[in-house]
Formats: sequence, C-alpha cells, structure tokens
Amino acid sequence: MGPMADDFERMWADLAPIGRSSTSGGYFRQPFLGAETELRAWFVEQAIARGLVVEADGVGNVVAWWDTASPGAAASGAASSGAGGAVLTGSHLDSVLDGGAYDGPLGVVSALAAVDLLRSRGVVPLRRIGVSVFAEEEGSRFGLACLGSRLATGGLSWSDAQELRDRDGVFLADALASVDLPGGAGWPGGGVLDLSGVGTFVELHVEQGRDLVDRGAAVGVASEIWPHGRYRFDVTGEANHAGTTRMEDRADPMLTFAMTALAANKQARLSGSRATFGRVEVEPNGTNAVPSRVTAWLDARCASDAELADLVGAVTRQGTERAGRDGTALVVTAESVSASVAFDASLATAVAADHAGGDWPVIPTQAGHDAGILSAAGIPTAMLFVRNPTGVSHSPAESATVPDCLVGVSALADTLERLAGR
Amino acid sequence: MGPMADDFERMWADLAPIGRSSTSGGYFRQPFLGAETELRAWFVEQAIARGLVVEADGVGNVVAWWDTASPGAAASGAASSGAGGAVLTGSHLDSVLDGGAYDGPLGVVSALAAVDLLRSRGVVPLRRIGVSVFAEEEGSRFGLACLGSRLATGGLSWSDAQELRDRDGVFLADALASVDLPGGAGWPGGGVLDLSGVGTFVELHVEQGRDLVDRGAAVGVASEIWPHGRYRFDVTGEANHAGTTRMEDRADPMLTFAMTALAANKQARLSGSRATFGRVEVEPNGTNAVPSRVTAWLDARCASDAELADLVGAVTRQGTERAGRDGTALVVTAESVSASVAFDASLATAVAADHAGGDWPVIPTQAGHDAGILSAAGIPTAMLFVRNPTGVSHSPAESATVPDCLVGVSALADTLERLAGR
Repeated sequence: MGPMADDFERMWADLAPIGRSSTSGGYFRQPFLGAETELRAWFVEQAIARGLVVEADGVGNVVAWWDTASPGAAASGAASSGAGGAVLTGSHLDSVLDGGAYDGPLGVVSALAAVDLLRSRGVVPLRRIGVSVFAEEEGSRFGLACLGSRLATGGLSWSDAQELRDRDGVFLADALASVDLPGGAGWPGGGVLDLSGVGTFVELHVEQGRDLVDRGAAVGVASEIWPHGRYRFDVTGEANHAGTTRMEDRADPMLTFAMTALAANKQARLSGSRATFGRVEVEPNGTNAVPSRVTAWLDARCASDAELADLVGAVTRQGTERAGRDGTALVVTAESVSASVAFDASLATAVAADHAGGDWPVIPTQAGHDAGILSAAGIPTAMLFVRNPTGVSHSPAESATVPDCLVGVSALADTLERLAGR
Repeated sequence: MGPMADDFERMWADLAPIGRSSTSGGYFRQPFLGAETELRAWFVEQAIARGLVVEADGVGNVVAWWDTASPGAAASGAASSGAGGAVLTGSHLDSVLDGGAYDGPLGVVSALAAVDLLRSRGVVPLRRIGVSVFAEEEGSRFGLACLGSRLATGGLSWSDAQELRDRDGVFLADALASVDLPGGAGWPGGGVLDLSGVGTFVELHVEQGRDLVDRGAAVGVASEIWPHGRYRFDVTGEANHAGTTRMEDRADPMLTFAMTALAANKQARLSGSRATFGRVEVEPNGTNAVPSRVTAWLDARCASDAELADLVGAVTRQGTERAGRDGTALVVTAESVSASVAFDASLATAVAADHAGGDWPVIPTQAGHDAGILSAAGIPTAMLFVRNPTGVSHSPAESATVPDCLVGVSALADTLERLAGR
C-alpha cells in the first residue's frame, strides 16, 4: 500500500489549500469561480500527466479517458463503447458554502488513484475507463443540484438552464462565458459530454451519515437514493414599524416562517424523514421593521416518493394555516424534485461482494448525487461510500481517515478491474 | 393656507424621488451614502436660500439657525442662548431599508415651512430658532439608533462609536471620511454640534401607529417614549448535510431561533408590549446544509423599564430552554437599550393646549427618536405627531395627508412662536 498511499496523499495535499476558509477551515468552491476553476485545471493537469485523453464540454464537465489496448475502442477522443460500453468513475469538485474537503473531491482523487493502482498491477482494460468531473453538483450557486450531469444526460434542457441565475442575478450562460473552461467556449458552443458510449458509472463518495460507523465498515455500497426536493416558501406580510405597531395589527411573515420551520422538523421526526430550512432571506431585514417578506427553502427527503409528497403537503398545510392566523400569505414553489433512484441491484451486490474480508454493507442514502442522475438516465450505476467518523457533511467537520480512503481506492480499483479489465 | 401649502408641497416634491425604489416605492436613505447625502445637501441649500446660518459637524448633524434680532444672541454662528436658550426643531433625513417617505423628512420639511410661516406672520424671534437634522437616527446602517444626537449630547463617546461597523464591515469613521459633509472632515476633525445653548427641542414626526386615527385628531403630542432595546441573539449549532443527517443527530440553530421568535411574539401579546425579530442572518445559508449559526435581532419595547427587562428575560429563558433541547447554544447581547423617556409634562400640556379647536391628544409612543435622546440629556423637549391613515410606518405604505401635514406645520409654528417669539 506504500506507493498507493503516497499517490493518494500527494494529490490530497495538492487540493487541501484550494478554496479553504482561513477562519472556519471550510471550503468555498462555488462553480465557475476561482477555487473551483483552479481545481478543474488541476484535474486536467493530472490527466495529462497520466497520458489520459481529456474530453471537456462547455458547461464545465470533464472526463479523462484511459483508452483500451483494443484498436476498435481506442480510436477517438470521444467516448466509444467497447463490449458493454465504457466504464466511467468520478465525482465533482464543487462544494457547498463552507463545506467539507471530502464531498466530491474524494471521488475524483480516488478515481485517479485507482487508475494508478490498476496500472501498477499491470491491468490492461478491455473497456475504456473514464475519470469524470461533473459541474455544479451541489447546486450551491444556481440552485439546481447535479447541473452538469443533468445537462449531459439530457435531464435538463439548455432552455431551462438558461433561466437559472445565482444569488447575484448572474445567468448561468454569463457565468460560463466568464471562466476559462478546458472545453473552450461556454454552452451551447462547447456542447455537452456525450455519455451514450458509457456502459457503467461508479461514484465513490464520503459517507454523509453514520451508518458505516454504526456497522464498523470502512466502505459501503449504495442501494438507492431517497427521493428529495427543494421547495421555496415565500411568505408575504406587511412591513411596519417594530415599535409602534400593535401586535394585533401586524402581518408578520417571520412568525409564519418560524411555525413552518418547527412544523417541518416535527413532521420529519414523526415520519422518519428529513426536513431542513437552511436558507432564509428576509426583506427588508432591518432590526426595527416588521418584515414584508420572508423567503425560506425547504430541503426534504423521504424513503418514498409518496412519503415526500405527504411531508411537503403536511408542512405546506400547517404553514398555510399559520399564515391565515398571521394575516400573511404563503406560496410554495417546488424548485427541484428528484424521484427515488434504485441503483442496479445486481451491480451493487457484485460490488459489495468484491471484497476479501466479506461483503460490504449495502445501504440507502438520502443525498442526491450525479450517480442518481446517470442511473435515472438508464446507465447501470453503483456508488461506493467511505466511512466518515464524524458522520458530519456539508461542514468543515466532514472527515475520513487516510486508511479508510485507501480501502476505498482499493475497492474502487477492484470494481473497475472487474467491470473493464477482465 | 395657500402660500404655506405651496411652500410645503414644493419642498415635499423636491424630496420625493430621492432614494426611492422603483420597484417597492419605498425609500433607501442609509446614512452617508448617495440618497441621504443628497438630502443633506438639499437641506443646506434650503437653509442658505432662507438666509439661515448653517452649523454642521463632522458626523453629519446640521442646524440651520434663524438668528434673533437681539444683538446679544445673534453674534455668532454657534448656538448661544438668549433668555432661556435657543429653540431647536427638526428631525432626520435617513430611512430604514425600504422605509416610508415621512419618517424623518416630515419633521425637517415642516420645520422649514414653520419658519417660513412665522416670517410671513412677521414674527421676530426673541430666541434663536434652529432647524436641525440629526444623522443616522434609524440605526439602519451602524445598528445604533440616534447616532448623531447621541454623539452631540455626549450620550455616546467617540471611542464607543469607533467600534461601530456596518453590515459590510465598514467602520463609522471610514464612512464619514468617504462622504462630503457640509461640516467638512469627519469626526473628530469636524467635532460635534454644541447643544449647550439649546433651551428647548421640538420634534414633529409622522405618527407610527393608529392612536390619532382612533381619536380622530390630525395632530397629537407625545407624553413619553417607552423603554426599548435591541438584542442580538446568536444561536450556534453544527453545520451538517440536510439530507443524510438524521433528525436526532442534528444541532440545528434554525429551530432554536424559530421557537424563540414565536416565544417573543407570545410574550409581547401577553404583556401588551412589542417584540419583533425583523433581521436574521444565517450561516452558511445554503439550502442543503443544516446551519452552523443563526443570528437574529430582537427589537423589544415595553411600558416600563421593569417590563422590558422581564420581557427580554422571558424570551431569553425560553430560547435557552429550547437550545438545550436542540443541542445548540444561545448567547444574547444587548446592543442598545434606551430607558423610558418622560417628556417635559408642562411643555406637553402647553403644546397640546395651543390649539384653537381644543386640546390635541397627549399620547405615548413606542418609537425611539432624537427627541428622546435630547430629553434624556436634560433639554426640555416636546414631540408633535401627525396622523398616519394607514398606521403603517417603516414601510412604503407609511402616509400622511397634505391637509394633516399643514395642520402639523401650523401647530409647530404656533409652538415655536410661543417658545421663541413672544
């Protein structure tokens, strides 16, 4: 494990300072801005240094291809399918605001390390292996998670994507045009990745909960992704003086929001689901003014599509009732809803069994991933999770030990070898 | 009333477009920025056009003096007391974020119109009359209401003021240095107004509630200002992934805040007080992250100092209990607390009686004003309120009719004449 450890740790050290806050220690790697652009350039350098063929598009997606020895499949830079299609593995390099180091980059670095490990084993792939980086996975800038993979799979059209703006009102197209992407001009000039030649996708990711800690396993395999959605709650009231307006004369949207946030929490606890109001914007947001408007975003995740609809319905109903009492108005808009994704069951079983010490646990996840988008697009897909001692994610406290990461690299290499190399 | 109406309406029309939002119709006149600076320059022009002597300081306070005919009092540009001291009247020109047109400017325009009316009546003041504009009355930029009058009365020291920063981290001194004040260089270079020669202060203000509507009176007189304060509630929790973190594993400060906001509302209703959370800031404020921190500001006002302490204590206690259940921590910091102010009772009675149609109602107010600061500094002070049909304030819906405004100008002129002219 010595050379593999050195290889992994060297790449990890390269990334550590990029986009890290000197105060919180968390990462700010928003898409198409400084840190994330630097990470993408680093990835292209790593690919070139390994003699991989770089394929990049106009929305920030990049794949580094390890071509096969077989003449039929190695001809072009674009993905072409060998028998059963290419094997793609990777993750993303963007982070949430003040996020952790592992969510995304661990999958990319592990994929490169797995390629190195396979080469050191003398493996000659019979199918092309691609290491992928998909853009804006977190949705932390344009509000839609898995933006790059949705565009590449056709799950999102450019005409819909054109409507997306960041918090400062910058349109996606303008953000793409402002940055030097390896694929050249922004979309549609630079097109999007063609995934039609991909036969299998494998994404390795840090675990974002404590299941693997509870099960005492360094690595796990995903069975499914819970359905989840983002819903904007707009509560409008009437701005007024905080001192002189009698309590009974107010239409205060903060109260409606507060009750709605508590209702969402209670509903999620009762149903074994997840519901979070993590983002709030207040107008005019002055200390001595009753607000005119509170906008808050509900992130909800449930074990089934029906439970998700029930949860959001119940929260909306309770918020609307409270709005009636507060003299405010509540409008709920679904900004994105992802149906449940069941990963390829036989692939998951095979990946989990592909382990000398016994089977890796097969567990569901509540987080959306590019793997979910590719799976929903009909590409057989598997996910590997690496244990996270804190269970914390989307936070500076997110973590994984180096030994666990190296087990992850080995597991990923074994999976790739089985899928592409024999 | 023809010339007076023309005079008032002309000035009002001058101010109407300055700092007005084209979308909400509300006003953004934050201290030491474009719109508010333009208003101050307008005021100086108006003063000069009337032959008033402008006295301005380094923190944005301005007084336009109408000197007496008596040689003893007219000598210098600085305030000097005639028998019983000068009579000062005025208000402020800054607004809250997305505020109304009347809060502040009505008192300044009415003071200029009252001077014009007294001159048209041939009144010769026996005491100097000053029209004042105090800076940053709302505290909407540096968080401390009545900043200009606190500095001028010595209620706030420069060493404390030096610590103040706006939301962008700009220090007060840097904000003052960046703007062209009529008093020249920012403080301490430009000093602060010397109010030692002021014998009486009268502030006219739009009413910020519905008392005068209920009483059917165009004008009212203030008896007292309720004690009030601003308290910062910092709730810290643990950032985490909104999807994968089990509800029972969270330390979500949004929940603590939500319960605290509802508790404050309930406590204020029960005690006949006012409590508002109108400003909230969330870290990292991402849709798919449990927040690490929620900071919210409580604006609280009660009929007595003891009730205010009780209210804030009760809200803090309930918030702290909830924090214990949420696994979060709540720290409450009083950013500013103003004790109750009882205005000069005999002056209020005289001002209220000074009316041909009967006595104006004498009513308490829950809003802080520069009048409260000057009164607390020992200057006999009165306040006149002008009826507000909507009762709404700190909002684009704030209003007053022109006839009511003109009754206000007359009442103010009568008061000034009695205090200074005979």
